Amino acid sequence: MAQQHLDPTDPTAEVVTGDALAGYLRTHATEFLRALRLHRETGGATGSGEESVDAARALRRSARRISGSLHTYRPLLDPAWSESMRPELAWLSGTLALEHAYEARLERLLQALHRLSGAAAFPEQVTVSGGPAAAPPERGNLTVGAAKAGALLDRQLTLARTRAHSTALQALGSSRFHAVADKVAVLASEVPLTPTATTTDLRPLAGAARERLTDAITALPLLTAGHPYNAEALIHGLSPDPSPHPQDGPWHQVRLLLRLHRYAREVLDAGTPVDVRLLTAGQALNRHRDASEAAAAAAQAARTPRIAPATAYALGVLHADQRHEVEAARFAFQRAWQREAVETV
Amino acid sequence: MAQQHLDPTDPTAEVVTGDALAGYLRTHATEFLRALRLHRETGGATGSGEESVDAARALRRSARRISGSLHTYRPLLDPAWSESMRPELAWLSGTLALEHAYEARLERLLQALHRLSGAAAFPEQVTVSGGPAAAPPERGNLTVGAAKAGALLDRQLTLARTRAHSTALQALGSSRFHAVADKVAVLASEVPLTPTATTTDLRPLAGAARERLTDAITALPLLTAGHPYNAEALIHGLSPDPSPHPQDGPWHQVRLLLRLHRYAREVLDAGTPVDVRLLTAGQALNRHRDASEAAAAAAQAARTPRIAPATAYALGVLHADQRHEVEAARFAFQRAWQREAVETV
Repeated sequence: MAQQHLDPTDPTAEVVTGDALAGYLRTHATEFLRALRLHRETGGATGSGEESVDAARALRRSARRISGSLHTYRPLLDPAWSESMRPELAWLSGTLALEHAYEARLERLLQALHRLSGAAAFPEQVTVSGGPAAAPPERGNLTVGAAKAGALLDRQLTLARTRAHSTALQALGSSRFHAVADKVAVLASEVPLTPTATTTDLRPLAGAARERLTDAITALPLLTAGHPYNAEALIHGLSPDPSPHPQDGPWHQVRLLLRLHRYAREVLDAGTPVDVRLLTAGQALNRHRDASEAAAAAAQAARTPRIAPATAYALGVLHADQRHEVEAARFAFQRAWQREAVETV
Repeated sequence: MAQQHLDPTDPTAEVVTGDALAGYLRTHATEFLRALRLHRETGGATGSGEESVDAARALRRSARRISGSLHTYRPLLDPAWSESMRPELAWLSGTLALEHAYEARLERLLQALHRLSGAAAFPEQVTVSGGPAAAPPERGNLTVGAAKAGALLDRQLTLARTRAHSTALQALGSSRFHAVADKVAVLASEVPLTPTATTTDLRPLAGAARERLTDAITALPLLTAGHPYNAEALIHGLSPDPSPHPQDGPWHQVRLLLRLHRYAREVLDAGTPVDVRLLTAGQALNRHRDASEAAAAAAQAARTPRIAPATAYALGVLHADQRHEVEAARFAFQRAWQREAVETV
């Protein structure tokens, strides 16, 4: 059913106009303001408690949705306002995302080190419901190399996270941020639509967002990704190029386009539950991004001067492990996407 | 059809007796002697030319088949002779196999290093038929770490191979070897069957060999192996235990039992082409063994004192890469075996 909205030639489909866009933008502007208030109340300026983290996540969540809708439905919105708004929202959600990203990256890498040390050989024990809580991983389970690698990553990523935290605090106290917040406050009551927006059909614009996504997916090496253990993701694993793997770029791009497509559909299908397959495909691409960045962090840590060979060895194993996670995520995306293609075409 | 031979209750199946075993043993004893002559003529004592390598392989091939048949069809053969023959054949084929194993391991590891350096990003170029021969991998394509890792492995495995070569030469010149060769020469004309062997049905014994194989396969974690990217093979990749991965043992055991089953069938199905699926499953297990040993060699090289961190890092990536090859081989075996089970049951 949701698919019909995207087909402007389908006479049975309901027409969705700028009114729906205005409603969507108002909702998420309100969400943004609520999250901001919560963030301030839970000591966002100083704390890193769970509530504060949730508030920051909610802020980013609504900022991304507003920004994405401005992009997809640009022709229905006042151009000057829209052009000035998007980069500010991108700056904000990017700044707020960094701290969490470093934290999640460290956690991913330490968990992988424990798995590789045989400490998590029976992961089902951890998830037994009702059973005792899993003990936190102990350093004692690790070899010297793994322990040193873990300590090095901990040091480097905690430092990066602390810096990101300060940057986020500065951002939230800046006049630049207050200007964005003011604009969002206005948006919560008054959406700057163009004069013709309320009679314009949104569906061709949503269809175009979908097409940008499918075009980008068509360019991905999905045939290779569908063959398990193709060993593609680790090619260049030892190449002299210190930059992140160039082969990851198109997948990261698809991740962003998938998100835009999902938000574009949210505007059309207000109240409809999220398409599970789209969500699965998106989660695979998130995992792809996380593993890609974790692998790069391990490689980066290995370039630290004067580390012990055992530390470097453990980081090499860890890098390769995360690159295989990248490959596994591509396989999972391919599976999720092909299934969707079959069922919705 | 081949399966029917293994079912002694099938009244339509042809009875196969000790005569077939005697024929099989004579054939492979003759092969053994031919290979031995060829090995001597092609300068087996000094050379390592292609013909000499082929002759050594043929020697091992027939030694394995004789030894395997003595094991499976033990009750049909003179026990004292059989008991004295088997360990000698095992010693011989084991000694002859080592040199080739080190050579193949080095080649596998260097190829992996080149792939990981992005040098073999387009392997199809290498196999284009009729095209120009693939250029040998160049060190210049490798990073410093990969190049140093390659040089270290080259040094260590070439040394091991040279030692294995000397040991093989000594073995072939030893009185112990001449005693084996004399026994095989007798076997080529005169197989020491028990008095009742020519009226004994071989099929129950072949069936028992098959059962030992299927029992061992049942104990393998095939469900896990059938899920791509299960990350099982790299668990313990950084564990303090320096011994080869204990999880590989049952797979190595199945590899040996599969070979015994295949030889047992050769005795029954003289002239029948080899079952392709059995061959595919066996190749997957060979790949499993090779990758397992290559991964261990990379981990071993990383323990060399005073290596540079970049070298250790490259060896860590290489180790993990080969452990994923182990996982891929298990996946391939699972696929091949399940297909066989479906089609032959």
